Amino acid sequence: PMPIYRCTIPQASVSDEHKEQIALEITRIHCEACPGTPQRFVHVVFEEVSPGNGFCGGQRSKASLVHGTIRGGRDQPVRSGIVTEISRTWSKITGQSEDDILALVIEVPAGNVVEGGAVMPEPGQEAAWLAEHSAS
Amino acid sequence: PMPIYRCTIPQASVSDEHKEQIALEITRIHCEACPGTPQRFVHVVFEEVSPGNGFCGGQRSKASLVHGTIRGGRDQPVRSGIVTEISRTWSKITGQSEDDILALVIEVPAGNVVEGGAVMPEPGQEAAWLAEHSAS
Amino acid sequence: PMPIYRCTIPQASVSDEHKEQIALEITRIHCEACPGTPQRFVHVVFEEVSPGNGFCGGQRSKASLVHGTIRGGRDQPVRSGIVTEISRTWSKITGQSEDDILALVIEVPAGNVVEGGAVMPEPGQEAAWLAEHSAS
Repeated sequence: PMPIYRCTIPQASVSDEHKEQIALEITRIHCEACPGTPQRFVHVVFEEVSPGNGFCGGQRSKASLVHGTIRGGRDQPVRSGIVTEISRTWSKITGQSEDDILALVIEVPAGNVVEGGAVMPEPGQEAAWLAEHSAS
Repeated sequence: PMPIYRCTIPQASVSDEHKEQIALEITRIHCEACPGTPQRFVHVVFEEVSPGNGFCGGQRSKASLVHGTIRGGRDQPVRSGIVTEISRTWSKITGQSEDDILALVIEVPAGNVVEGGAVMPEPGQEAAWLAEHSAS
Repeated sequence: PMPIYRCTIPQASVSDEHKEQIALEITRIHCEACPGTPQRFVHVVFEEVSPGNGFCGGQRSKASLVHGTIRGGRDQPVRSGIVTEISRTWSKITGQSEDDILALVIEVPAGNVVEGGAVMPEPGQEAAWLAEHSAS
């Protein structure tokens, strides 16, 4: 359950078709890295920034920024792996250079999150939580 | 002082009247859970996501995402309680199922925050801070 | 490398010229506080909130919210200093009262971030990382 990936991009820099592919790939990458997370819990949101509103080094920005919020409790290699693969896959889909892609994940304790009306389970306890949640 | 609740919603999924009610209720829920926080310090922002920009499990999303940023130092039951009550109240106001609502809070150390030109007090020290802040 | 400063402002409350000045100043403030961070890695994004979408204490908000995401590992005075100076500088540029400005920074472990296809270095190890990164 839960991750949210917010993608902040320059206006019209990514086509609708590529957005859909990116959303599917981020969902796949997250679920493979975090077994037990159902795909339907992975949220991906694109936010388009108009030219006068995005800066990098004080200049107009070409960068795509992916800001993930995931449950805490994953090992460091898992977290590094997720952002590395998101950057690589984004570049492959869009043709953008990885120099213009920044991906990061912020961790939040499971107890700080409610989805479907229930406080999130710790990583690894999804099966029991989903069974209970579906029953209610 | 300080909390920011960012609500990311599908475009036109919440009416202006419901937004106002949600803003008032989030403000109330936060201030009751965190005594000493004046209502005027609670920020609520709605962000509308157009159909091609929001995904869940790789499909078009119906979800409402509430992302709170609060000062660190609250007990876990307080944090779980805030997000639980926000989800329940959101559903009651809008009629949306809690299955389509995700609420979370991220904590930030008080020393990382400035409001009104002054670094935030730790939780529980608001009264002294407000007295000093108002005098300056 | 890396910081992202997201500025959430009431619609049309900051001119294009002031946005550019703010982006340059946030870049300068961050790089002076965190030596070794090249200016071209500092991202500043403005997000405009329409009147019915921004609330403070349940009322229409006039507030400007600056939400920074920086690598972990900076001392508390550095973090407090960054947000204090951003608030002061924003007020000086725009003429807005600091009462209507909130600035905060959230820390993220370097290992949770990829930019230019490479996992971020810890603070203080930027020179080696940049040398290696430029060579690749």
